[in-house]
Amino acid sequence: MELTVTKKDLLKLVTRMQGVAERKSTMPVLSNVLLAVEGPNSLRLAATDLYLAIAGKVAAEVSKGGSVAVPAKDLLERVKMMPDGPIRIASEDNATTTLKATGSARRYTLRGMPGEDFPPLPVPAEGAPTLAIEVDVLRELIQKTYFSISGDETRAHLNSALFEWDGDVVRMVTTDGHRLSKMEVKVEGRQASATMLIPLKAILELRRLCDEIVPEQGKDGRAQIQITQSGSSAFFQGGGSTFSVKLVDAQFPPYSQVIPQNSDKKVRVPRGQFADALRAVSIAASERTGGVKLGISGGVMRITSESPESGDGFDEIPVDYAGADITIGFNAKYFLDVLGSLQEDDIILGLSGELDPAVVRPASERNFLAVVMPMRI
Amino acid sequence: MELTVTKKDLLKLVTRMQGVAERKSTMPVLSNVLLAVEGPNSLRLAATDLYLAIAGKVAAEVSKGGSVAVPAKDLLERVKMMPDGPIRIASEDNATTTLKATGSARRYTLRGMPGEDFPPLPVPAEGAPTLAIEVDVLRELIQKTYFSISGDETRAHLNSALFEWDGDVVRMVTTDGHRLSKMEVKVEGRQASATMLIPLKAILELRRLCDEIVPEQGKDGRAQIQITQSGSSAFFQGGGSTFSVKLVDAQFPPYSQVIPQNSDKKVRVPRGQFADALRAVSIAASERTGGVKLGISGGVMRITSESPESGDGFDEIPVDYAGADITIGFNAKYFLDVLGSLQEDDIILGLSGELDPAVVRPASERNFLAVVMPMRI
Repeated sequence: MELTVTKKDLLKLVTRMQGVAERKSTMPVLSNVLLAVEGPNSLRLAATDLYLAIAGKVAAEVSKGGSVAVPAKDLLERVKMMPDGPIRIASEDNATTTLKATGSARRYTLRGMPGEDFPPLPVPAEGAPTLAIEVDVLRELIQKTYFSISGDETRAHLNSALFEWDGDVVRMVTTDGHRLSKMEVKVEGRQASATMLIPLKAILELRRLCDEIVPEQGKDGRAQIQITQSGSSAFFQGGGSTFSVKLVDAQFPPYSQVIPQNSDKKVRVPRGQFADALRAVSIAASERTGGVKLGISGGVMRITSESPESGDGFDEIPVDYAGADITIGFNAKYFLDVLGSLQEDDIILGLSGELDPAVVRPASERNFLAVVMPMRI
Repeated sequence: MELTVTKKDLLKLVTRMQGVAERKSTMPVLSNVLLAVEGPNSLRLAATDLYLAIAGKVAAEVSKGGSVAVPAKDLLERVKMMPDGPIRIASEDNATTTLKATGSARRYTLRGMPGEDFPPLPVPAEGAPTLAIEVDVLRELIQKTYFSISGDETRAHLNSALFEWDGDVVRMVTTDGHRLSKMEVKVEGRQASATMLIPLKAILELRRLCDEIVPEQGKDGRAQIQITQSGSSAFFQGGGSTFSVKLVDAQFPPYSQVIPQNSDKKVRVPRGQFADALRAVSIAASERTGGVKLGISGGVMRITSESPESGDGFDEIPVDYAGADITIGFNAKYFLDVLGSLQEDDIILGLSGELDPAVVRPASERNFLAVVMPMRI
């Protein structure tokens, strides 16, 4: 293999591969990035951990075809160190691969593996149905819900996000058993039906992909991502690369049963002030539980914390509420995550009994809601 | 104790205490900051780990005297969270201490210890001799030498910097056994004689202190630090606080014997290009040794590395040298530390045999030199 690519193009794609290439796999080849010539003007890069896979192409001037796999982290470090401009990549039959900056003495040799040792990436079945979604929509769905995905990999159904396309509504729901987030967006004139459970690691990669694509396309928000579901995998195409993920084969909790249909008490709360006060009071909360107590009475919300180690914290903010007094305890982090993902000035906090879940909604928008379970304080 | 201080003043001093207060000491009181009223308008803060100590004062409106010790980290977190403006601090007889923002509901209670439990800080003996040094000078001495202090706390003589005042020359020398740095500054008209071995932890705190003082005084570089040696301690006073350190009682290596008096071969090297090439090549060096090979021949320096894990690296830069060819190996980090501390465009690299130490000097300045031991590559 022998070819020339531009540092900038190569760096972007090699960076994108890092989240997927597995550094500590029992299969050494999975810590590599595949470099494979495809025709006279194209170099294909790919990485996979056998669950996720990412592939993309860069423009290249190819003088000799072939393929090789080289360590992902080593490759990234070396490409970063290259001066701007063209880089010549040449690999020998024993997979030894040299990177040399054109017009500079700087060069690296990497010990690679033959390209044939790299596992084939999944491809969608011929004619599998494809949906197009705007990057901005997918990004918002993820942004508003990813934080309540469980980090516990042994509970696959909670370690993933439910993505549903239901008529002209696209929906993402996540829960870790203590809280739940649901975001819906109406996509006018695009009827479809799809349900998939996307694992957390893939959600985080998709988020990165969305963040990268928009600036590339001039921030007009019209950039599209093509989603194809085929077999047990989903494929996301956009921004010059294809990202695929093996979907989770498990039952997502029946989320609509978790969402309270009616909350007795509705409190209108200034979002920024609430987050600021929660953050301040929670530093004095018990490290183990992170619990704070909310006491709402006469237009004022009092936020208190206490811990055996580090004393007490207290703050209060004005709220719009005239009903019976309420006292209820929560993990402050759960609220801070939700408040941080929203933009609106006010939220509506729906409460019932002190052991009933709270519902958080932006004051004037019906597309998002979060449910937070209370804790005994 | 009951008083009011400004958040800004308190935050600055509490932040400065953090490097000295010991979080993991067997004596719990050492993780605290002492707050002690001194007269009607002054609050004194102090922290110590029994080796280092720092104390300073903030203006306060005192309504009741007394003292209390509160956890340093907890105090910092809480002061940070306070709105700008006055903070009222009140401690009860059981050392429970309340911080409350004036004009806001935000408040914290901390569990403290009686101020009497805090160990007394060392004070210089009456009439102990004091030297005055400009902050900029002390800062430069540290900046050019601190990186070659050994991190090994079991070797006290290498885990510290030698500070010498010798006639009108102030000098700092450090070595970890593999390299050495020496910086001298002439202080016209100020004859003195002093020798002290300052431990690494204190050097790092002094560096922070110097960095803080200069901006306060309008960057005119005329701010002074008073240095007093008394008993086994040294006291550094400046910027509104006093920093004291128990000096190391050990024999610093006879450093002048380590510095080669003459190097056969003198190579003039562009500093920036050398550092850039070293950084690039060293990422391919063996992780264990960090070794790179320098080959100098016909006006060119070739820098090479190889590691069993990740292949080879190569770069070359132009140098000013016309003598016999040289090949010599070094730990790249040792050179990068020195090159990074200098500003001049060119350095002079003095070399002899391939097992002889190298000498690095700025091309047109005689105040600084570094010695780097070679390694077999």
